[in-house]
Amino acid sequence: MRKPLNVGMIGFGFMARTHSNAYSKVPHFFDVPYTPVLKTVCGLEEDKAKAFAEQWGYASYTTDWRKVIEDESIDVVDICVPNNMHAEIAIAAAQAGKAILCEKPLAMNAAQGREMVQAVEKAKVANLVSFNYRRVPAVTLAKQLIDSGRLGRIFHYRANFLQDWTISAKVPQGGMATWRLDVKAAGSGVVGDLLAHCIDTAMWHNGRIGEVCAMTETFVKERLNVETGKVEPVGIDDACTFLCRFDNGSLGNFESTRYARGHKALYTFEINGEHASIAWDLHDLHRLEYFDHRDESIVRGWRSIHVTDADMPYMDKWWVPGLQIGYEHTFVHQAADFLSGMASGKPAGPTFREALETQCVCDTVLASAAERAWKKVSY
Amino acid sequence: MRKPLNVGMIGFGFMARTHSNAYSKVPHFFDVPYTPVLKTVCGLEEDKAKAFAEQWGYASYTTDWRKVIEDESIDVVDICVPNNMHAEIAIAAAQAGKAILCEKPLAMNAAQGREMVQAVEKAKVANLVSFNYRRVPAVTLAKQLIDSGRLGRIFHYRANFLQDWTISAKVPQGGMATWRLDVKAAGSGVVGDLLAHCIDTAMWHNGRIGEVCAMTETFVKERLNVETGKVEPVGIDDACTFLCRFDNGSLGNFESTRYARGHKALYTFEINGEHASIAWDLHDLHRLEYFDHRDESIVRGWRSIHVTDADMPYMDKWWVPGLQIGYEHTFVHQAADFLSGMASGKPAGPTFREALETQCVCDTVLASAAERAWKKVSY
Amino acid sequence: MRKPLNVGMIGFGFMARTHSNAYSKVPHFFDVPYTPVLKTVCGLEEDKAKAFAEQWGYASYTTDWRKVIEDESIDVVDICVPNNMHAEIAIAAAQAGKAILCEKPLAMNAAQGREMVQAVEKAKVANLVSFNYRRVPAVTLAKQLIDSGRLGRIFHYRANFLQDWTISAKVPQGGMATWRLDVKAAGSGVVGDLLAHCIDTAMWHNGRIGEVCAMTETFVKERLNVETGKVEPVGIDDACTFLCRFDNGSLGNFESTRYARGHKALYTFEINGEHASIAWDLHDLHRLEYFDHRDESIVRGWRSIHVTDADMPYMDKWWVPGLQIGYEHTFVHQAADFLSGMASGKPAGPTFREALETQCVCDTVLASAAERAWKKVSY
Amino acid sequence: MRKPLNVGMIGFGFMARTHSNAYSKVPHFFDVPYTPVLKTVCGLEEDKAKAFAEQWGYASYTTDWRKVIEDESIDVVDICVPNNMHAEIAIAAAQAGKAILCEKPLAMNAAQGREMVQAVEKAKVANLVSFNYRRVPAVTLAKQLIDSGRLGRIFHYRANFLQDWTISAKVPQGGMATWRLDVKAAGSGVVGDLLAHCIDTAMWHNGRIGEVCAMTETFVKERLNVETGKVEPVGIDDACTFLCRFDNGSLGNFESTRYARGHKALYTFEINGEHASIAWDLHDLHRLEYFDHRDESIVRGWRSIHVTDADMPYMDKWWVPGLQIGYEHTFVHQAADFLSGMASGKPAGPTFREALETQCVCDTVLASAAERAWKKVSY
Repeated sequence: MRKPLNVGMIGFGFMARTHSNAYSKVPHFFDVPYTPVLKTVCGLEEDKAKAFAEQWGYASYTTDWRKVIEDESIDVVDICVPNNMHAEIAIAAAQAGKAILCEKPLAMNAAQGREMVQAVEKAKVANLVSFNYRRVPAVTLAKQLIDSGRLGRIFHYRANFLQDWTISAKVPQGGMATWRLDVKAAGSGVVGDLLAHCIDTAMWHNGRIGEVCAMTETFVKERLNVETGKVEPVGIDDACTFLCRFDNGSLGNFESTRYARGHKALYTFEINGEHASIAWDLHDLHRLEYFDHRDESIVRGWRSIHVTDADMPYMDKWWVPGLQIGYEHTFVHQAADFLSGMASGKPAGPTFREALETQCVCDTVLASAAERAWKKVSY
Repeated sequence: MRKPLNVGMIGFGFMARTHSNAYSKVPHFFDVPYTPVLKTVCGLEEDKAKAFAEQWGYASYTTDWRKVIEDESIDVVDICVPNNMHAEIAIAAAQAGKAILCEKPLAMNAAQGREMVQAVEKAKVANLVSFNYRRVPAVTLAKQLIDSGRLGRIFHYRANFLQDWTISAKVPQGGMATWRLDVKAAGSGVVGDLLAHCIDTAMWHNGRIGEVCAMTETFVKERLNVETGKVEPVGIDDACTFLCRFDNGSLGNFESTRYARGHKALYTFEINGEHASIAWDLHDLHRLEYFDHRDESIVRGWRSIHVTDADMPYMDKWWVPGLQIGYEHTFVHQAADFLSGMASGKPAGPTFREALETQCVCDTVLASAAERAWKKVSY
Repeated sequence: MRKPLNVGMIGFGFMARTHSNAYSKVPHFFDVPYTPVLKTVCGLEEDKAKAFAEQWGYASYTTDWRKVIEDESIDVVDICVPNNMHAEIAIAAAQAGKAILCEKPLAMNAAQGREMVQAVEKAKVANLVSFNYRRVPAVTLAKQLIDSGRLGRIFHYRANFLQDWTISAKVPQGGMATWRLDVKAAGSGVVGDLLAHCIDTAMWHNGRIGEVCAMTETFVKERLNVETGKVEPVGIDDACTFLCRFDNGSLGNFESTRYARGHKALYTFEINGEHASIAWDLHDLHRLEYFDHRDESIVRGWRSIHVTDADMPYMDKWWVPGLQIGYEHTFVHQAADFLSGMASGKPAGPTFREALETQCVCDTVLASAAERAWKKVSY
Repeated sequence: MRKPLNVGMIGFGFMARTHSNAYSKVPHFFDVPYTPVLKTVCGLEEDKAKAFAEQWGYASYTTDWRKVIEDESIDVVDICVPNNMHAEIAIAAAQAGKAILCEKPLAMNAAQGREMVQAVEKAKVANLVSFNYRRVPAVTLAKQLIDSGRLGRIFHYRANFLQDWTISAKVPQGGMATWRLDVKAAGSGVVGDLLAHCIDTAMWHNGRIGEVCAMTETFVKERLNVETGKVEPVGIDDACTFLCRFDNGSLGNFESTRYARGHKALYTFEINGEHASIAWDLHDLHRLEYFDHRDESIVRGWRSIHVTDADMPYMDKWWVPGLQIGYEHTFVHQAADFLSGMASGKPAGPTFREALETQCVCDTVLASAAERAWKKVSY
């Protein structure tokens, strides 16, 4: 019999939904060592916290996150609140001996992140940051192909994360729905929200980034802040592009914007090696594009791999070949790996320590853009 | 508060998983009038039935489907067993006053299907056949676009359902995993398994098919029957192509096979109207291709609609634009519509009566292939 | 030094342009044994024939095709006039000892085609029918892949030729621009114009078609005839779909229409074999899609081959990898092969005799549609 | 009657073929004011120059380019030799009063380019640099769409030019076939060869680039020089990526490499505007992708425009809708526009003066990479 594992959820927004769904589904599909139990959910607005608890089957709700941490029955604290609250909650949870699953980015900046790493390592609690796109089967497959050496020497890594939802100057900042546009809550714009995903995947695939040179832009300079009711300057980056060099000698090119009309959530990457190349696109996340120069020349071409067969990462747990899974499944995979890592002692990644490296690159990108200069990344 | 609705699941195979998942998820995402409760699951092999019950949280299990029907606490009987058992179970369930959700195809043939229709209509029980692909958001959107009149007069409807999993002569027939190749269990091959989906969608989109002319083929003539241990003739159709005319004057072209190397579950359709055309493909189920001749000529082209925005069918219940759902969600939508239909009295489709029409076309297709002649469809 | 070869062109329409361009270009790119010399062009309208001669550099023009045939200096007669004139001109040209390149389809029907075959074979003159799509490099590559045995046993051959230019009832019939809608000039509609291409390629790829079952439709029943000035019944087929069986046991599915909104000239084919499949599309003619089941499973997928490298058919004569050729080049390849065949004695195909087989299938398709029955093809 | 225009071709390599083909074809398809006459071709190797003359129908050949310029019958000098010879030949040709069509990039650097501009402007001779990709119909259409204002404010311009032909360290430098890898002949690597195309198109579409920040890499440090027979350091850039800001406030991201396995000549660009976006890809040059946010939301998606209809730029001169043209046609369009510009006095672009701006950006990109700093472009 599986042991129950009591989950305390901090937050009731979009990410809390994805995580709650993952906890609900994971025992139906994966042979996990624990059965997550949705014990309590915490949110500042009581009626919404209550409604969320009912919708998802949480046994209780609260408006005070400290009560979740004080609750001895809670095994895992799951942090799904704006970035500016990650550090305080995570450090308190670590001190209380809770396992922690924290939404990305790890923190507002690397200094804060370092404190969080120290806290979880001192407390020896399980810890994971939710860079969920690692666990798209096609992205995991890419990792396996790279690690197998098929690509040979890597020359180029390119990644984009393009959206278009903030083009209108009428989109406000602040509040529950648009805190990501408020620098006080988010810390940065596309860098922490979107490029952090690209950087996490890239360094997982291709090793550390050594130096960067970035430019940022804020196209809409002022927006209504729904919390203050005033039109205020926009403090976040609307767009950011950066060049970089990886430690393995390959060149990187990263771009993110929320002003790319026609792209809703177009996270793409491409990696070019001596023998083979790989490309992927979140808008068709169940496919991986693969080119192998060693193929016989008259039948050589980019292969569109429909990543749905049972020998693909995670896919033996789902349906049959040809039947695709979607976005939410990345969180189910994450929950499965997190639970397995807790039982086995081989933690799933990225841990806080690993995610701190992404935070370091993000900080350096922002500094490079501010200083208009190449900057080495200090890890 | 939602009322609980007790589900008795007959079967523990692939389709039982998709339906159980749907019942588990639907209250988390949809504002349904009932909360499905997984009460009991029935399967011939006790250990597997027990394991299924544990995996999915069914309160009990049994090896005798009649016990499910005799159980007064059961509200809905869900039939996920081979085709040759649909009629007997469904008729008994109707007589016991249960609501019924039955996997497709409705029956082994139209005669059997008619008895099932009579039983559910006499008993006045809710009834639905699981032609789940209607509830892919892109397919539902196609229905809305057609019904809005945008396409104008329809000239052509084309549908394919191509697979490649039975090419090897070593694939057996019979048994739990390969009953679809055994004519005694399945009734037919690709006609009932795959073309039934195409026909259901097509008549939903484009109205009744009036006459058909078909050809079938069985490429591998003998296969091991895992139930008898003997090599036996294959009685099913491995491939079927048919021409047809719809009552609205449009021409149809349908093809299905399990011998199309490279296609795992490639269900595609295309509909050509006077003003606009639509195309869809199950391998990328979250997209709909749309061409509108009324577009200004220099920017006229096929549009690839990423069906993930909140104004798309069902998509307000899921994530945010750009983040796709997958195969399993069609069953969640089906469960939501079935429950809503039970409460509202406006039943979700296709009901048994509606699905009988698809069965009639299937029967006529098989007869046409056998007689090598055009045949009118009798409904 | 190459020998000059004097060309007499009958016709000055669209196909005369493609052929004249081919004769002009072929010596610049191919090591052909003859240099085509544009000697004379013939057209009924003198001013247009003259203008065509000037545009293309023909040394003279005439309004009487018999003068071209009587001209002893002419080596090759190239027939680019409506179908109802092919037989008379070709037979006269053969009797005069001219080499003949004739636009497709060969004739109005198989009976006429047989007379043409007899004439060219009796006269022992070089002869070729312009089924130009055989000489798209990707289509030729498909032939090589099939002939190499890579696909293994063939199960399915599917081809479509979809257009949308006659949907408006205002498009007239007859005359120079729209003779293809006039049954007296064209003999048939999509069958002879479009399906003839599909059938030629299919039998080249996959061997003879043994029997067919077809349906045709004429959606617009009457159109203005620009020659008579009267609204007259439309005698051609607007659309035709047919099922067939090839002699090698594979199943065929062919469809053509001029009522598929959104498709300008979408000729596609797909062939499914035991081990591998191939697909092609005229709208992206420089690509061939190839799937090989023998690929390692985790990197198996449809390959999109960009057919531009020097080891691809014909492509060593053109540019560099990545730089595509287009429609017109099929005629240059045809001219190169025709000239080489004349010199070598190994004639390029399809000869009149080979093209007659396509005509036989076309006739049988039309008969099957009229009789609503399966029909064997008599060759 | 059209006036003849005598062409003297300097060079007999790849680009000389594309230009010669263009001169041969242009009078057959375009209503040009002059008929180009292939008068003489010049090449250092006499036998190859002679063979080229025979293949293309040049009336004579020479090994001394000064003789071409001294030849009073020559009207146009066409420069298709390595970059290090452009300036000397072009200045001499201008002084001799010849019209000049020069391959790109204009010169080895901007200083040299300025001298060339002065020479042609002083001599008042027609002059054009062969940035042929402007004249892909889809690229010209993009220009029209942008100029029409449909896109609204521009936020982003992205362009890539990716190749993979120099990955092997065995590819040599220098000589006729690989002079592009020899910095003495080429001046730079991908910057002058490939990014120059991207920059020309980008500034034509989106206005001047104000400042840049670049990185370059030479992955293979030494290669055999086929001229000296020695292994020598590689002086060119194998790869270059740069960030930039356009004068209109939009952000640019440009990348080129010859180490992107799987891409033969993948020139792509994408431009994101407030209302609409455009994307294009040289590997499918006959398509333009277009997204318009003003489309009704339920049918909004990227449109794939098959740029083959007669109302598309240049396409009224070619075939019928659906039938694509290829790479070579860009040079035919260029020849047509150059000839028309000579007659009308409204010169086709980019003139030497316009192409100098691209040279200025290229120089600044190389300087920025060397200095690892942002640099303003001086025009």
